[in-house]
Amino acid sequence: MTVRAGIVVTGTEVLTGRVDDRNGPWLAEQLRVLGVDVGSVVIVGDRAADLQSALGFLAGSGVDLVITTGGLGPTADDLTAQVVGEVQGRPSAVDPELERRIGAIVARLMAGRGWRADPAATAAGVAKQARVPEGATVIEPVGTAPGLVVPVAAGRSGPPVVVLPGPPAELQGMWPAALAAAPVRAVLAGAEELRQETLRLWGTPESELAATLRRIDGQLAGLEVTTCLRDGELEIVTRFGRDAAPAYERLATAVRVDFGDTLFSTGPTVDDLVAGGLADRGWTVATGESCTGGLLSARLTARAGSSAWVLGGVAAYADAAKEHLLGVPAATLAEVGAVSPEVALALAEGARQRLCADVGVGVTGIAGPGGGTAAKPVGTVHLAAVGPEGLLTRSLVVPGSREAVRQRTTTVALQLLRQLLVGGPPA
Amino acid sequence: MTVRAGIVVTGTEVLTGRVDDRNGPWLAEQLRVLGVDVGSVVIVGDRAADLQSALGFLAGSGVDLVITTGGLGPTADDLTAQVVGEVQGRPSAVDPELERRIGAIVARLMAGRGWRADPAATAAGVAKQARVPEGATVIEPVGTAPGLVVPVAAGRSGPPVVVLPGPPAELQGMWPAALAAAPVRAVLAGAEELRQETLRLWGTPESELAATLRRIDGQLAGLEVTTCLRDGELEIVTRFGRDAAPAYERLATAVRVDFGDTLFSTGPTVDDLVAGGLADRGWTVATGESCTGGLLSARLTARAGSSAWVLGGVAAYADAAKEHLLGVPAATLAEVGAVSPEVALALAEGARQRLCADVGVGVTGIAGPGGGTAAKPVGTVHLAAVGPEGLLTRSLVVPGSREAVRQRTTTVALQLLRQLLVGGPPA
Repeated sequence: MTVRAGIVVTGTEVLTGRVDDRNGPWLAEQLRVLGVDVGSVVIVGDRAADLQSALGFLAGSGVDLVITTGGLGPTADDLTAQVVGEVQGRPSAVDPELERRIGAIVARLMAGRGWRADPAATAAGVAKQARVPEGATVIEPVGTAPGLVVPVAAGRSGPPVVVLPGPPAELQGMWPAALAAAPVRAVLAGAEELRQETLRLWGTPESELAATLRRIDGQLAGLEVTTCLRDGELEIVTRFGRDAAPAYERLATAVRVDFGDTLFSTGPTVDDLVAGGLADRGWTVATGESCTGGLLSARLTARAGSSAWVLGGVAAYADAAKEHLLGVPAATLAEVGAVSPEVALALAEGARQRLCADVGVGVTGIAGPGGGTAAKPVGTVHLAAVGPEGLLTRSLVVPGSREAVRQRTTTVALQLLRQLLVGGPPA
Repeated sequence: MTVRAGIVVTGTEVLTGRVDDRNGPWLAEQLRVLGVDVGSVVIVGDRAADLQSALGFLAGSGVDLVITTGGLGPTADDLTAQVVGEVQGRPSAVDPELERRIGAIVARLMAGRGWRADPAATAAGVAKQARVPEGATVIEPVGTAPGLVVPVAAGRSGPPVVVLPGPPAELQGMWPAALAAAPVRAVLAGAEELRQETLRLWGTPESELAATLRRIDGQLAGLEVTTCLRDGELEIVTRFGRDAAPAYERLATAVRVDFGDTLFSTGPTVDDLVAGGLADRGWTVATGESCTGGLLSARLTARAGSSAWVLGGVAAYADAAKEHLLGVPAATLAEVGAVSPEVALALAEGARQRLCADVGVGVTGIAGPGGGTAAKPVGTVHLAAVGPEGLLTRSLVVPGSREAVRQRTTTVALQLLRQLLVGGPPA
């Protein structure tokens, strides 16, 4: 049995891009693990008519469950709970016990932050957040906003709606309680869990992969294959039920045969492989960055526990910083310029020596939009990785905007580290 | 006249969160400037039925224009052009001239990257990308995929659909040509441009703002006000037509009166203010980071031209790096620990001195999830900014995940720099 769900993300700040939506993707992934297929995510602004229209669309498309995120705050533009109650045919009223509990949470928060709080303003916000549609299940708040599970009113038909707050930490903390609510449990019963497998290629164009997929198309029944090219990495993600496991093996074998020279992972990301490689060998790493300005050290330290292998890095933006902090020879800078293979290597060696690390990585280049020349156009980057057993270098011209050049170059640096640490296809 | 548009973002990789959607927000903002109101963005996976359903929803909701992004690549899961043609009642066929032009682009790309290319695979992908619905306008490709403007077939009713590729650089490059197509020009004629204004508060809770907005609610007709709390910053964005300008002045005045002690900007972001402050004073800056691991220097160097004021930074993750690269005294590290106001100040002073900068910023803390103690819980952070005219410090406990602590701390560092450079509310 295929169980399908739809997601509505509310918030003008999300619709207009001032805030990235992290809830839609997170919920889609959670639901996938439970065997629920998410067909669409609808993002609407803080307007009742647009929210109503989105809820109507999803109910009409035959989904078994709808989840909304956002619009549960104390301000007037937060209107999700009320609109969902109306759509489901259930009038809302203040729940006095819930009002008391939210009031206590808000008082504690205000005191903890030392924020001034006008009592009347606070009380009005609390009362708004304590309004519950008749017959709905309340999900206790992790922040200040409670969630709701709102079944459709008796005599009508339509999917139950789970109402969750917008802040990701609150939504994620309240998710288990949402799953435990009876109307949600009833929908989820009988869904078959799907597996998801990922293959990662470095340096294969999408059209080559398409040719392989076309050749074996008849043998892939039951697989949902999606491919995505990002920062030079071609990701092949396949979702399938238990019965299609042999078909997946056929796909994986074909990719191994056709792309053995670019297949660098059958699951882990390049970040996983680098972290694992450093941990396994007991090596430490240090970075010397110019055009990426700290993105590489920030990415290496994003992982919990990374202080066990990352000693630090220098974002040596000015030439004087390259010279004084990382010992790049002034003569080299003068002769071949800061954007050169020689300086990439000197940054890697300088980071390695000055931070007493086992491995050093150096990155230099022209991120643009200015600063390019005919000989060194915008996007020219040079990288080097130096370790106890040898060194690797890479030079290329990365297309795109300043941001694209910085991001892609950071990924190339990770691939170079991956090659140095665990081998596999060239970076 | 209100002109409304809807956006469909296609791609299972976006739906499942493996890739962030950057096109929906970008298009919504472009359309806003043209006076077009975007009511919703629908994200669907690479499935024909879901795409059809989303197109049907938007057409049925009465929008005047639909824009799709993604699904124009050479692989079989790229099916947008064909589905849009079917929905608009226009059968597709290969356009031989377009096929020739795409073929030339692909051949040039492959040669430039040194990628191997199977001629038959390439030709099949090119032919797929050259299929055009009857009567559609072709938008010449910036990458390899052409865009389309597909009006509804004669005798039917519905909005025209603009079909654009998924890679943001391609979509943005092709946008002017999409606007120039006759069916799009016809829709846009007569739309009234909306103004958007932003007020930014640092340290005011949302409920306080809600109280002010409730008090003056009767005076705000014609304004669409949305508020958003992010990384400690409360952003108030207001959109309005020409006639509502006096109402906006009333809102801005009320915010100035009630929140003069936290209003730090009537437009520019904290990043803009810091960049402007450094440029105006002719000062340079250097960073010494521990828990943020390079995020601060990466954020400062994200801006084009930042090499004029950013000299560089040290991500001093290990204590030895703090000591050797930034001169943090070993005795201080031993006595008060790396996570202390003293070390934050020593990092700021060390960065300033070692990089010969006018301003130094130091950040230290516990990003978690491990490493916390009763005295120094996870989220404890200390910051310092030192300049030619004095210094500022800040200590706080940031709630949330490792990522949230690192991001929020980076924002606090920017606020501290902003206070040092241009004054305004305390960071």
